[in-house]
Amino acid sequence: MQKLLYVQLGDQISDQIREGLYKVGERLPSVRELSKREQVSIATVNTAYANLEQRGWIEARPKSGYFVRRSSLDAVDLPETANLKPKPRHVSINELAMEVQRGASSKTGASFCAAVPDLNFPISKIIQRTYVSQARAGVTFDQGYDSPEGLYELRKQIAKRALEAGIRVGVDELITTSGAQNALALALRALTKPGDIVAVESPCYFGLLQMIESFGLKSIEIPTDPKDGMSIDALKLALQQWPIKVVLSITAYSNPLGCVMPNDHKQALIQLLQQYDIAMIEDDIYGELQFEGHRPKAVKAFDEEGRVLWCSSVSKTMDPKLRVGWIAPGKYYAEILHQKYVNSIALPSLPQSVAAQVMAQGQFDRHLRQAREAYRQRSQHLIDLAQMHFPSEMRASSPQGGLVVWFEMPKKIDATDLYYQCRERDVRIAPGELFSVTGLYQNCFRMSFAKPWTLESEQAVAMIGQQLKEMMMKS
Amino acid sequence: MQKLLYVQLGDQISDQIREGLYKVGERLPSVRELSKREQVSIATVNTAYANLEQRGWIEARPKSGYFVRRSSLDAVDLPETANLKPKPRHVSINELAMEVQRGASSKTGASFCAAVPDLNFPISKIIQRTYVSQARAGVTFDQGYDSPEGLYELRKQIAKRALEAGIRVGVDELITTSGAQNALALALRALTKPGDIVAVESPCYFGLLQMIESFGLKSIEIPTDPKDGMSIDALKLALQQWPIKVVLSITAYSNPLGCVMPNDHKQALIQLLQQYDIAMIEDDIYGELQFEGHRPKAVKAFDEEGRVLWCSSVSKTMDPKLRVGWIAPGKYYAEILHQKYVNSIALPSLPQSVAAQVMAQGQFDRHLRQAREAYRQRSQHLIDLAQMHFPSEMRASSPQGGLVVWFEMPKKIDATDLYYQCRERDVRIAPGELFSVTGLYQNCFRMSFAKPWTLESEQAVAMIGQQLKEMMMKS
Repeated sequence: MQKLLYVQLGDQISDQIREGLYKVGERLPSVRELSKREQVSIATVNTAYANLEQRGWIEARPKSGYFVRRSSLDAVDLPETANLKPKPRHVSINELAMEVQRGASSKTGASFCAAVPDLNFPISKIIQRTYVSQARAGVTFDQGYDSPEGLYELRKQIAKRALEAGIRVGVDELITTSGAQNALALALRALTKPGDIVAVESPCYFGLLQMIESFGLKSIEIPTDPKDGMSIDALKLALQQWPIKVVLSITAYSNPLGCVMPNDHKQALIQLLQQYDIAMIEDDIYGELQFEGHRPKAVKAFDEEGRVLWCSSVSKTMDPKLRVGWIAPGKYYAEILHQKYVNSIALPSLPQSVAAQVMAQGQFDRHLRQAREAYRQRSQHLIDLAQMHFPSEMRASSPQGGLVVWFEMPKKIDATDLYYQCRERDVRIAPGELFSVTGLYQNCFRMSFAKPWTLESEQAVAMIGQQLKEMMMKS
Repeated sequence: MQKLLYVQLGDQISDQIREGLYKVGERLPSVRELSKREQVSIATVNTAYANLEQRGWIEARPKSGYFVRRSSLDAVDLPETANLKPKPRHVSINELAMEVQRGASSKTGASFCAAVPDLNFPISKIIQRTYVSQARAGVTFDQGYDSPEGLYELRKQIAKRALEAGIRVGVDELITTSGAQNALALALRALTKPGDIVAVESPCYFGLLQMIESFGLKSIEIPTDPKDGMSIDALKLALQQWPIKVVLSITAYSNPLGCVMPNDHKQALIQLLQQYDIAMIEDDIYGELQFEGHRPKAVKAFDEEGRVLWCSSVSKTMDPKLRVGWIAPGKYYAEILHQKYVNSIALPSLPQSVAAQVMAQGQFDRHLRQAREAYRQRSQHLIDLAQMHFPSEMRASSPQGGLVVWFEMPKKIDATDLYYQCRERDVRIAPGELFSVTGLYQNCFRMSFAKPWTLESEQAVAMIGQQLKEMMMKS
């Protein structure tokens, strides 16, 4: 009982801090006051406060009591454009990326390495039950191959949800894909030939860099602001200097920076696409994971010429192992459909039908509201813990949605070394090396906050901090 | 009873003809003799003979009795190598192919156009029930993305079945794919770059030609014998003259010819691969659909250097909409795994688990035995009907497995015209134009015999024959 009480009390206080009842730097009730107010023993309050201190929520000041810690950290500095000297390069991301991806499914230890959603929300049970009911009813079972464009019912649901992103797209303008990764691959295949140049964010999600390398393309990394996303000025400069074929960007809660492109930047981007007569591949997989308010509009919402190929999936909002994604390819519809048909004929029918059925239910929107709030809290807790344990010189992004935080350490830290040291202790992060071919982010790393916090994962953050501090001293 | 007896008697006689007991042109027992021998009435024999005549097995000659018709038809003549003048060409297959593919799922009329299996065998219900039970048990539901190489349990079952094709492959030497089409696409991507030359069969399954075109590759069509498959001599000649990068072949019950490469040809092929230091992509999707005896060995069974990439799927034996296939890529394992990962990260988990579970059950082998016999009978009936209704100058392949028959008409017949005429009457065939970029097969077409025969589909064959005869007269 004693133990349960202090946990309850601690959770209550951390909730109140999150909700702003106690502001940063504010003094918390004394042990005696709280004991009286909450009708618990002095020992219980002491234990609750000690635990909150250990977890980074509060700090004790000698002879003054407990105070709320400074809680949201400074955003990462933008790498200076001058230093970056954008140049197309042959991408070369090594096998580290696949190892990091595999680490995500490790059954033991603490894994912060992959942007995979928490699969313990009630929606997972709903997906499972829908699988059972759809299979039992024999939905799609009377047909052979699904059509190349994908299940009609699913495309109908996607067209509906697209309206939330400001996109008006017809059911027959959508093609389903094997996750967003497959949508991006089909789009890149259709728009480029080997040797072509693709403009990407910097830092850039390593799966995109691997794809670009694998397709024999060159990437040009455009400086990206941790708040506002890809720099339009830098993109303009790059377009002036290089024959860029396509712009590829995660426009909402980008991976890894968590940035969102403001609407006026989106309009400016559309104008650049028109001016240089090129296309844009928009990866919008995190668009529905905003922490607050309405989801951001997609660039596609501003596109009147069909130049933007809008790609997304249910992998971050429902379940990645359904492998259900989609693309609204604008004027490139025929090429994308042909690419999909040639590469795999069609998608499996039942997972598409399950995704459509779940989307059609009100429970999905309820789930999204629940997940957004959970992720908001988990994100904040990661930043709090980092602030407590990581070297004081560190910087961190302040994502307003999505699943990841980007950390920047002093230059002397090698985050790939850190990755290996953590892996030995069964703790996994994604080293910055993966997010560029320029070597710019060797001192950075990405951490996912999707999973619910546990004592083990909190201790893992403390351990990472310990490693970082030791590396700081050695070097 | 009367009716049953004449059917029994008719089947007995047609079996005897098939088995060679009565040769082509041979006189059958007189009505009186047969009545005596089989202890049935004169009327029963008369009805049985009349029915066999109607179905194209036998013919009545006035005042002489009944005779066996020319029954197993001559195989399609091999296009002469001299005429073919193999040359690499830019493939250009038009949208007709996708239209033909779509026609397969038409709900009305008679569709002979796609090599899609019959989905009304009991196995379909077993697959459905397995989906329900696997979903209910939450199999794979505790994990995020499946691993890039694919579900372990499925790879284990595939490795077991590979032994039947003479292939010894470890569980960790297999990668699952989105059907065989996806396996072939991954293999072609990994082995070639745009402009490279791929050697294929002639005629060649149009899905492969479309893929080759879409990837910017050139194809060289190697003369293919309707019995023995790709000509090794012609391939040798082509290898001497052109820098062929990879050989792509459906080695068992090829689509469209139904041919099987003999084992000594397979060995000779392996030697050519070694001599020219190139790879082979083996498409083995029909390998388990032999009409009689044991399934053919794969070329992969003779491969000791890991040069053969063995591709197959459950699309022809279980259900195409599971989209479960695989590849044993030999020494190209790492490239294929990377290609799969980059293009779609992983497959959906549950369909893989369902396929594995069904394979592990004895019912799957029982199903295969049932399907093989059904397809054998349906194939024979298509050939019988064609013989009865099509112009006498026609030739047809005699497949010993698989799902299709290839018909060759006199040169004046345009099978693409025939396709459109049939489509107007809601009957679908696959015109020969699709199976080559050389224009060699404009007078040919492919018909699938997978579905059970109905009065409607039998009448459709008669209608096709009517169209053909009219075209013969007009021209």
